[in-house]
Amino acid sequence: MIKAGIVGGTGYTGIELLRLLVQHPAVQLQAITSRSEAGKQVSELFPNLRGHLDLPFTEPDVETLAACDVVFFATPNGVAMKQVPALLERGVRVIDLAADFRIREVGVWEQWYKMQHACPELLGEAVYGLPEVNRDAIRQARLVANPGCYPTAVQLGFKPLLDAGLLQEESLVADCKSGASGAGRGANVGTLLCEAGDSFHAYGVSGHRHQPEIEQGLSMMSAGGVNQLTFVPHLLPMIRGIHATLYGRLNNPESHSLADIQALYEQAYANEPFVDVMPEGSLPETRSVRGANHCRIAVYRPGNNDTVVVLSVIDNLVKGAAGQAVQNMNIMFDHPESEGLGQVALLP
Amino acid sequence: MIKAGIVGGTGYTGIELLRLLVQHPAVQLQAITSRSEAGKQVSELFPNLRGHLDLPFTEPDVETLAACDVVFFATPNGVAMKQVPALLERGVRVIDLAADFRIREVGVWEQWYKMQHACPELLGEAVYGLPEVNRDAIRQARLVANPGCYPTAVQLGFKPLLDAGLLQEESLVADCKSGASGAGRGANVGTLLCEAGDSFHAYGVSGHRHQPEIEQGLSMMSAGGVNQLTFVPHLLPMIRGIHATLYGRLNNPESHSLADIQALYEQAYANEPFVDVMPEGSLPETRSVRGANHCRIAVYRPGNNDTVVVLSVIDNLVKGAAGQAVQNMNIMFDHPESEGLGQVALLP
Amino acid sequence: MIKAGIVGGTGYTGIELLRLLVQHPAVQLQAITSRSEAGKQVSELFPNLRGHLDLPFTEPDVETLAACDVVFFATPNGVAMKQVPALLERGVRVIDLAADFRIREVGVWEQWYKMQHACPELLGEAVYGLPEVNRDAIRQARLVANPGCYPTAVQLGFKPLLDAGLLQEESLVADCKSGASGAGRGANVGTLLCEAGDSFHAYGVSGHRHQPEIEQGLSMMSAGGVNQLTFVPHLLPMIRGIHATLYGRLNNPESHSLADIQALYEQAYANEPFVDVMPEGSLPETRSVRGANHCRIAVYRPGNNDTVVVLSVIDNLVKGAAGQAVQNMNIMFDHPESEGLGQVALLP
Amino acid sequence: MIKAGIVGGTGYTGIELLRLLVQHPAVQLQAITSRSEAGKQVSELFPNLRGHLDLPFTEPDVETLAACDVVFFATPNGVAMKQVPALLERGVRVIDLAADFRIREVGVWEQWYKMQHACPELLGEAVYGLPEVNRDAIRQARLVANPGCYPTAVQLGFKPLLDAGLLQEESLVADCKSGASGAGRGANVGTLLCEAGDSFHAYGVSGHRHQPEIEQGLSMMSAGGVNQLTFVPHLLPMIRGIHATLYGRLNNPESHSLADIQALYEQAYANEPFVDVMPEGSLPETRSVRGANHCRIAVYRPGNNDTVVVLSVIDNLVKGAAGQAVQNMNIMFDHPESEGLGQVALLP
Repeated sequence: MIKAGIVGGTGYTGIELLRLLVQHPAVQLQAITSRSEAGKQVSELFPNLRGHLDLPFTEPDVETLAACDVVFFATPNGVAMKQVPALLERGVRVIDLAADFRIREVGVWEQWYKMQHACPELLGEAVYGLPEVNRDAIRQARLVANPGCYPTAVQLGFKPLLDAGLLQEESLVADCKSGASGAGRGANVGTLLCEAGDSFHAYGVSGHRHQPEIEQGLSMMSAGGVNQLTFVPHLLPMIRGIHATLYGRLNNPESHSLADIQALYEQAYANEPFVDVMPEGSLPETRSVRGANHCRIAVYRPGNNDTVVVLSVIDNLVKGAAGQAVQNMNIMFDHPESEGLGQVALLP
Repeated sequence: MIKAGIVGGTGYTGIELLRLLVQHPAVQLQAITSRSEAGKQVSELFPNLRGHLDLPFTEPDVETLAACDVVFFATPNGVAMKQVPALLERGVRVIDLAADFRIREVGVWEQWYKMQHACPELLGEAVYGLPEVNRDAIRQARLVANPGCYPTAVQLGFKPLLDAGLLQEESLVADCKSGASGAGRGANVGTLLCEAGDSFHAYGVSGHRHQPEIEQGLSMMSAGGVNQLTFVPHLLPMIRGIHATLYGRLNNPESHSLADIQALYEQAYANEPFVDVMPEGSLPETRSVRGANHCRIAVYRPGNNDTVVVLSVIDNLVKGAAGQAVQNMNIMFDHPESEGLGQVALLP
Repeated sequence: MIKAGIVGGTGYTGIELLRLLVQHPAVQLQAITSRSEAGKQVSELFPNLRGHLDLPFTEPDVETLAACDVVFFATPNGVAMKQVPALLERGVRVIDLAADFRIREVGVWEQWYKMQHACPELLGEAVYGLPEVNRDAIRQARLVANPGCYPTAVQLGFKPLLDAGLLQEESLVADCKSGASGAGRGANVGTLLCEAGDSFHAYGVSGHRHQPEIEQGLSMMSAGGVNQLTFVPHLLPMIRGIHATLYGRLNNPESHSLADIQALYEQAYANEPFVDVMPEGSLPETRSVRGANHCRIAVYRPGNNDTVVVLSVIDNLVKGAAGQAVQNMNIMFDHPESEGLGQVALLP
Repeated sequence: MIKAGIVGGTGYTGIELLRLLVQHPAVQLQAITSRSEAGKQVSELFPNLRGHLDLPFTEPDVETLAACDVVFFATPNGVAMKQVPALLERGVRVIDLAADFRIREVGVWEQWYKMQHACPELLGEAVYGLPEVNRDAIRQARLVANPGCYPTAVQLGFKPLLDAGLLQEESLVADCKSGASGAGRGANVGTLLCEAGDSFHAYGVSGHRHQPEIEQGLSMMSAGGVNQLTFVPHLLPMIRGIHATLYGRLNNPESHSLADIQALYEQAYANEPFVDVMPEGSLPETRSVRGANHCRIAVYRPGNNDTVVVLSVIDNLVKGAAGQAVQNMNIMFDHPESEGLGQVALLP
């Protein structure tokens, strides 16, 4: 059994981790910490866990966490970086679901996250936890930086085309739409049902924190570097789900038919347990991955155009957060990668 | 392994059965029939099943179904009654998720369902599949009539009070609210997103088919008979979930404090794996059972009133349909009652 | 022109007042106050008003408000009572959309609202602003207490039956469902889209502040007094709309057919511009009043029961708040009662 | 008074026309036709109109319609083209809200709409009813082709940039999202609440009927012609609203700052009553135009990119259909362009 702890169990990624871990056959939950709710039963706050989990929130405490094999940080940005070094020293492996270790260059991180990094020396060691890119490194990692939700959907969507060097790199557009759970469980006027429940709008158009994370990832795929990604996130009037609509122009449009590109994707992801390249003509729906760890992808070449369109959907709380974290844990501890992740998406 | 078949796999109860059965460790899916979709892969219609199920819809065919240990009917009312006798003869056990075998008196059934019953002789044998009431009979049954969604929420909600004879029986009110999936997957103007997605209204106020089913069930609990239940269903602008708000006046209000009633409920359901009596002061949310087989209940005595209020929530597609059917199957085949039903509700 | 001011223009009743008043042909908006947003253009906060209103929020200031003919308070409970006396002295008429002046007995008010009343001497003078009950008194009033949303739907729904003395008064049940805008625009975890957007639950079952207001109103209609109303509010996963499902048992069920009761309602509301008694068999939808000042009502006698069921819908922000306030203003200033209230509900 | 008739009053554009026309001070509704509902009161089908409209649906009949000054066709594609010639002959002016007269080349139209055109000779005369482009021609028109919803949002969004010749024309991307009312009121599994109410997906990626309409419009704005527009529509889990996110790369990125482009837009639309260029940094929300005839636009240049992003929102049923039709009617009959279109968007 893998002994697991969660720091910050009261947000949406925390509660989703709980949902997955209580169903995982090889995990024993040791501790869930929350300063604000310490002492309260977890199932009192999240009644869906009644009958599944008999554990109270506890104060964050190094000794308790040090008894774990792995600790997940489901905390706001800037919390994990302060506690991770002590845990690593004690031999605990760490998966951070926040952004503290996602960006390799500390200067870029500090510019976007507006704070000083507490342990920049770990940025080089931390492994970016996108299994489809970094599986081998994840296996050995002490510290995994779990990817952001938009970055997961966008990188998986562009990867085969960029790996093959087919796109004009200054042409990339990622028009992304996310359910409101991506904004977290904090009280906030902008994500009230009455504000966001029957409306749609873009946000962060001038610059969103996931932009440098995506660009860093795409650059590693791409020979020439990606320096002009246009990324526009939007808020959907629903709870779960990300839909990335990706656009890129082909370098040699005549040389690559839609069938070629479809084959490229199928081949690229043939052995991936959680990336599903759908048949030509499919329209991936966010509900087809609601509660499940899959990313479903379809590719198009509309009209007589030189543009490729990629549709990529994930559940932002699963493949975009907690599910990917469990997938990373499985890899790190040499368990079957899909263990505990067999949930079928809830449809309807 | 239990070899299972599904007749009518294209509606919402059918697809929910599929979601549960593909995750059930002791079930082997043999056949899923659909006249309209025969030949098509199930996962083509329901992409959430991609990677979980590799089976096409087939024409309904007695020989195929006769090879099953159990056949679920997820068909419109009036279909199962025509096919069940042949299957029973072949030694197949049947669970009907429609209403064909729920009402014991054929005259009542024919009046409400506006057709002639094809095998009234089976109405006496059919067991009403509410495990909390009929567990022993279900174990032996060849033919189980799986309860309706409203009837499940209402009967579980009233049961302890009626069993104990505490209510004035002419005072019962069941004000029920259901998500739109209860109305099925048929194309229908009234359940379009644009009609039902931002509105709320009652329906069937003059008479709803679940009324005789509920009254039949409540009568069996109650010494004096229930002959004045007032039942008003409403349509919620959401997909899954039933909330029954139940009212009844106490015969002897002074003799039964709220604490007494709370204790009565906790005792009545102490050993039930899927009925959760929540602590005093709880407010059951439909999302706390979304995708899960639980019924969660809270009891109240507001003000200095002689009225008891019971709040009872289920997922209409799980405890109100497919989950309860799987629970019945587990009982019938002497498997652990909770096997394959460990899903944690999806929250948020 | 009626010179109008609004105190507290940043909540949902405030912004709804603005929507109605900028379209009112006889109103000149003089001032909208908000401590938190003073100096900012109203349309910057509420872009639906761009092009309709060129006015900034200002600090609350007696001099500015004293120049108005009427001041609306769209403030939290407990604010108006501190400012109203000074305005009345200056000859300004006041309509309070909060609860400060709704309850006649100061002791009851203080018990439910958990604070000391600042001007109990005005409670006797304040007129409860339900035009269908108090039209003549409203016309003369200096101070109108605009009714709560639930109380409006429930009182209009029960009124004809209670006026006629037909109900057993200890039998009344009001099962009410409200959109989330009734909870206001404050940042609050419970009304986040992710918490309330795909779920349904009751609240305030042990006691809700609208209970004494409703009981006070029903008592005045009823010969024998109403002392056992059972009132259960629920939160709908939508923004606007209240649906009250009302139950009461007839004293003499044989003497009053459904047709009699239908006629009673049609007669009672024959001259009311904003109460619409729908034909027998109608199912009022909340969307049929979305954005409009109507209350639509249907009556039923299900089964062979002695129970009457009344369905009553309003838009909680219009007839349940801002629209009713404008209706009261029209009455107070001897304008046509429907002036500026001709909005057709937005459907779909 | 303008005497107006509506052919096909039972769909969403029909009912929206009714909502607007009953509030229009200069319109007298003469007739509303519907084959399927003839004889029924309009307000029976659409209870939001109770108290506002006392008119039954009638059979479509040339004599009745010939008594109108203007007839609106709110019918499926292919209906208007059969009836319009007879009405024009009788001197009636026509506004077609369907697509019959939007495309100038009959071959293109027949290819996309898969039927033979019944009166191709009128395609040259018909005026494309986008007032911001064709106001003078509309004034004189006998026959106005009211634009589609996506085309309205996209054309208004791109217009100033294309008129000024600033964009690389092969670079245009229109990523569009629409509420479900755009799909009409027909019974359809895909737009059931249970299918579309908690999900998001693209559709028509390989080709959508609005593509040739948009390209025709953009071409007229643009010197070089637009021949590579990439247009991807998506279905939002809500009822009303279109959000177009538009991308284009600048020919001379160094020569045009964001401030220049903002000024270009403000100047271009300075005198337009229904196009609102919002201040820099604004994020237009669909709810800011819900029920109103405005198009709200914001422009961005994210990062150090050569790409311009335009955000353009409309209510698909108002500026995208019925509201624009009324605006066209006002222009045709020399009434103030905003008459009857003063509705403030419903927010929240």
